[in-house]
Amino acid sequence: MALIVQKYGGSSVADAERIKSVARRIAQARDKDNRVVVVVSAMGDTTNELIRLAYQVNRRPDDRELDVLLSTGETVSSTLLAMALENMGYEAISLSGAQAGIRTTTVYRGARILKVDPKRVVQELDKGNIVIVAGFQGITEGMDITTLGRGGSDTTAVALAASLGAEICQIYTDVDGVYSADPRLVAEAHRLDEIGYEEMLEMASYGARVLHPRAVELGELYNIPILVASSFSDRPGTLIHGGVSMEVRNKVRGITHDLEVAKITVIGVPDRPGIAAALFQPLAGAGISVDNIVQNASIENITDLTFTVAEGDLDKAMAVVGPIAKEIGAKECASDAKVGKVSVIGTGMQNTPGYAARMFGALSQQDINIQLITTSEIRITCIISKARVKDAIRALHQAFELEQGD
Amino acid sequence: MALIVQKYGGSSVADAERIKSVARRIAQARDKDNRVVVVVSAMGDTTNELIRLAYQVNRRPDDRELDVLLSTGETVSSTLLAMALENMGYEAISLSGAQAGIRTTTVYRGARILKVDPKRVVQELDKGNIVIVAGFQGITEGMDITTLGRGGSDTTAVALAASLGAEICQIYTDVDGVYSADPRLVAEAHRLDEIGYEEMLEMASYGARVLHPRAVELGELYNIPILVASSFSDRPGTLIHGGVSMEVRNKVRGITHDLEVAKITVIGVPDRPGIAAALFQPLAGAGISVDNIVQNASIENITDLTFTVAEGDLDKAMAVVGPIAKEIGAKECASDAKVGKVSVIGTGMQNTPGYAARMFGALSQQDINIQLITTSEIRITCIISKARVKDAIRALHQAFELEQGD
Repeated sequence: MALIVQKYGGSSVADAERIKSVARRIAQARDKDNRVVVVVSAMGDTTNELIRLAYQVNRRPDDRELDVLLSTGETVSSTLLAMALENMGYEAISLSGAQAGIRTTTVYRGARILKVDPKRVVQELDKGNIVIVAGFQGITEGMDITTLGRGGSDTTAVALAASLGAEICQIYTDVDGVYSADPRLVAEAHRLDEIGYEEMLEMASYGARVLHPRAVELGELYNIPILVASSFSDRPGTLIHGGVSMEVRNKVRGITHDLEVAKITVIGVPDRPGIAAALFQPLAGAGISVDNIVQNASIENITDLTFTVAEGDLDKAMAVVGPIAKEIGAKECASDAKVGKVSVIGTGMQNTPGYAARMFGALSQQDINIQLITTSEIRITCIISKARVKDAIRALHQAFELEQGD
Repeated sequence: MALIVQKYGGSSVADAERIKSVARRIAQARDKDNRVVVVVSAMGDTTNELIRLAYQVNRRPDDRELDVLLSTGETVSSTLLAMALENMGYEAISLSGAQAGIRTTTVYRGARILKVDPKRVVQELDKGNIVIVAGFQGITEGMDITTLGRGGSDTTAVALAASLGAEICQIYTDVDGVYSADPRLVAEAHRLDEIGYEEMLEMASYGARVLHPRAVELGELYNIPILVASSFSDRPGTLIHGGVSMEVRNKVRGITHDLEVAKITVIGVPDRPGIAAALFQPLAGAGISVDNIVQNASIENITDLTFTVAEGDLDKAMAVVGPIAKEIGAKECASDAKVGKVSVIGTGMQNTPGYAARMFGALSQQDINIQLITTSEIRITCIISKARVKDAIRALHQAFELEQGD
């Protein structure tokens, strides 16, 4: 008798009919004699509706209150799912994050899970119940409700799977797995049957938007296989795990992209110690995430410093960087919102120079200018003109023969 | 510095504007240097919407799940009210029933409060917070959420007031107090400035629908003065308390009525021990509340037994009573849904026969036939034709000179 943790996202439980349909999927897993724990998100657009309500009474709602408010979304869907299962003759019980033992830090809106004490979950499983846990929520030591921020329900599911020693954590969502590239842009993109945790982390960070990196990191840490699949179809999905077969390793797995990028260049910076800190510490202080930092080789102790930020942060970032650039004696400070990011992802790429050459060659053949290059062990990223991102993805998908599948 | 508990009903917090308006009322109480605890119901029609949602996935939703689901209604309104107060510059915090220490029995949908452990409430008051408690909900010893059934939020408020030693419990609702009769039926009806607990209990049970008897009983038990007033106006409301002045006692305080009544008569019952039990135990078992039981004097060991039930329970009651009537050898079993109830309420009435005579006289003058009479220490009730209830209330209001006020 295996223990399975399943997670269903908001679009999978958007209304009563979808909830009944999800209940039938859960029942199938139970019929195969599994012990089943289900983590569920709030129905459809509930969370945004609750936030709208909050803003109607307070322009800057308190984070603690907002967390209590938002947590009701998952509470509602968890009880409805339990009821739908009972309606089909299955024994089920809903538990709040607190009841399921999800203990968190006291950082409202973005709490981290400190530990999971799944005593009650095990008790209910032992009684023969399917256990439905409200995702996205936890409780502090002081018994205050927190929410886990972005990717919270995915994280709840993987954390429960880890603490229960589950065989697998199945994340059901509105896409049917991880693709070699965004299928809306590349017709030949194919679903990956499996992918390693690290590759998935690069895929997710770089725009795959299938599974939040927090959940993948947790899965890697506790070595929990995570299946990402659609709750709207019976297609097999993508298995994210540590034991990816040797043949699959050392190969480009996918192309990701990000259009919400802007580039900032500080030109003519005196090349002396402390300059980078002087720039990036205030940006971090302003809550702006900086990505793809590149510093050109210094010529006569003058260097250019380029980095990217989320497009939405550009104005705020320029307001921070402008005065500092002046202060440190930089020549000028330029920004460009018309850029995009394409990345090639695959384990062991850095040890295989051929891949970088092939990437640059493919872009060059399309007459696409590369403005910035950064690399990690398993990723090569180029910043290019936003207008050419689609062409770039298609060209790279073809160059790395991704249409052929695993 | 007095401690005040306020309670706001669902219509008082039906939308963002109403919530802001309630926040202003709470702020006024806080400005007078009071320690303020607020109990709040779910917004407007939320509870019914949640029930509808439940029935969409399960025709007979589980009571435990339903309680978790319904409890979210009060959680939402409590956080929004706290946010609205914070928006006005007041320190406020919302607490769930569990956090406020409302410990209950494990009877879902209609839990009783076992005890209140308001430690957290006191802590938050000491920090200078206005404490907003989600009404209607509590928690069992096993840490499962319960709801308190009808009058639940009123009961939460009075129970908190009792456990905190509050000076007063103020129930804000959509009526501005307790009236000498239903003002929709009797134009001359006037608001009572004060009323005793027992009188209020009779008023509430007999159709005043202002405050649930559970809350009044609890107020009497712990001697907590309860003010019932409108959240939509600044009118003074009605104070329910134990120290009603002597002049006000021994007087008819109000006329109440109930149109949702049906009468059942079991005719020709052999008058022997055990007959009443044989009839009423199965009715109780079927969850049917029986009221106004009257057994006529026995003639030749044959008697008639008449009682009333809620009109909605009539068919169910007849299905239970019919076969039993046959079994115990009764002649026949008749029902009449075209009846209504009028009552005259006032402390010490039973010791003042003049009141009964005046009541019967007033009805007789209007040519209203009395079908059934029952009395308690502070109430005389007549069952009459439903069609004549309005006339009866007006006649009685006049006969007891209630238009003159306290």
